[in-house]
Amino acid sequence: MDSGGFAVAFILLSLAASSLSERLIRLPLPLYSDALRYRQNDDSFCESWKFLIESNDAGVWYVVPESCVKFVKEYMNGERYRSDSEVIVDYALEYAKTVNISGDGRDAWIFDVDETLLSNLPYYVNHGYGSEIFDEKSFDEWVDLAEAPALPASFRLYTELLQLGFKIFLLTGRSEFQRECTDKNLQYAGFTNYEKLILRGDSDLGKSATLYKSEKRQILKDEGYRVYGSSGDQWSDLFGFATANRSFKLPNPMYYVA
Amino acid sequence: MDSGGFAVAFILLSLAASSLSERLIRLPLPLYSDALRYRQNDDSFCESWKFLIESNDAGVWYVVPESCVKFVKEYMNGERYRSDSEVIVDYALEYAKTVNISGDGRDAWIFDVDETLLSNLPYYVNHGYGSEIFDEKSFDEWVDLAEAPALPASFRLYTELLQLGFKIFLLTGRSEFQRECTDKNLQYAGFTNYEKLILRGDSDLGKSATLYKSEKRQILKDEGYRVYGSSGDQWSDLFGFATANRSFKLPNPMYYVA
Repeated sequence: MDSGGFAVAFILLSLAASSLSERLIRLPLPLYSDALRYRQNDDSFCESWKFLIESNDAGVWYVVPESCVKFVKEYMNGERYRSDSEVIVDYALEYAKTVNISGDGRDAWIFDVDETLLSNLPYYVNHGYGSEIFDEKSFDEWVDLAEAPALPASFRLYTELLQLGFKIFLLTGRSEFQRECTDKNLQYAGFTNYEKLILRGDSDLGKSATLYKSEKRQILKDEGYRVYGSSGDQWSDLFGFATANRSFKLPNPMYYVA
Repeated sequence: MDSGGFAVAFILLSLAASSLSERLIRLPLPLYSDALRYRQNDDSFCESWKFLIESNDAGVWYVVPESCVKFVKEYMNGERYRSDSEVIVDYALEYAKTVNISGDGRDAWIFDVDETLLSNLPYYVNHGYGSEIFDEKSFDEWVDLAEAPALPASFRLYTELLQLGFKIFLLTGRSEFQRECTDKNLQYAGFTNYEKLILRGDSDLGKSATLYKSEKRQILKDEGYRVYGSSGDQWSDLFGFATANRSFKLPNPMYYVA
């Protein structure tokens, strides 16, 4: 704390101490009164902002704050994004190996597609890392190219789950008209041998992602599938109803899907 | 990457390239095959472990990994814990101010107690920061002292919510026999004027925290309360049924309550 901070803290302490002296004197944590100082430091704020959005504390949000674009860029291109994803996959696999595969072909795992199996980072590099309002037209053009690479950690999980005997379902917010390019991209990125690719049909348009994905999970459960695990970068991939036994939230500080 | 890493990556690349050459060559992200190297660096692993447990990806866990005790200690005593909490409170308050307070006394906000309003850090400093298996006896003795300090960010939220006109409910996993010391501690820490302190009664013993807290929220809703917000350091404070309109997960890398 600089001397100005000390002075401010001291004045506030003195004022507050008159009514709450015991509490404030015994506080082992620094006073909250200088909390605003954190927001003057971008890195510290952005670190906390990342916690906030990854814990769904922010609720619906639309763009990465201007002051955090550099932070998100460094995170997405650096070791932390990879490390976070790899450690999550380690835990997912540790859990998957405890599942008693029945052999009836009804042991299932659900993956989301965008930022879960496929990385749209090449698109977001050219669109401000989530600092621009989502532009459906240019994103659909990118999807149409079918050139999104595999997320390395998820590719490892996907491959090992298949080997363990899980049936893999892909449940994406993409629409039916994108089935061909999505399937082409998945094949190209190495995601083969999945059971089913589920996309939004006409009757799903306008539904929240949480409702749409919950309904589709419910159908799988009604068909007798045991949904042991679910992997997604959005809470709307994982929550709602008919949830998986275990959910694995992957990082995504670039955008939010309600 | 050191030269050994390069060699390993090159061999794996060569092997894989024979079947998946296009995919691997075009991957803009580094190969997943050297992922294990991250876990040899404690700080990098612990950063990812924190993401993992805060996103509930780890499911139930019992102790902080030995290699992350130093990381947790630094986090809890340093600026990041404070910064994370303050930014969450900023967002919670921003949301709270959008609520149209009705004036009928039924606009509610729920707080958990431990690691939400009160900090047990003085206890955990002496118990390995969560690296020791939870010891109910010594923790209950600590609770009995009624000396846990207020979490500064939560104190700010609590105070401002009261001023806005919210009715505040405290919903804790502590038991009825701890009512007196809990109330004493809350008063001492400055948490006054709450509507009700709800503790586990005889009929709640043995229930999961998620079920117990969901049932209590349901009762509040049945009584006509509109539960706009809920603050807690555990997912079991926030999820289940009868959830609040918005939930605010606070950080806690020291322990997990199912």
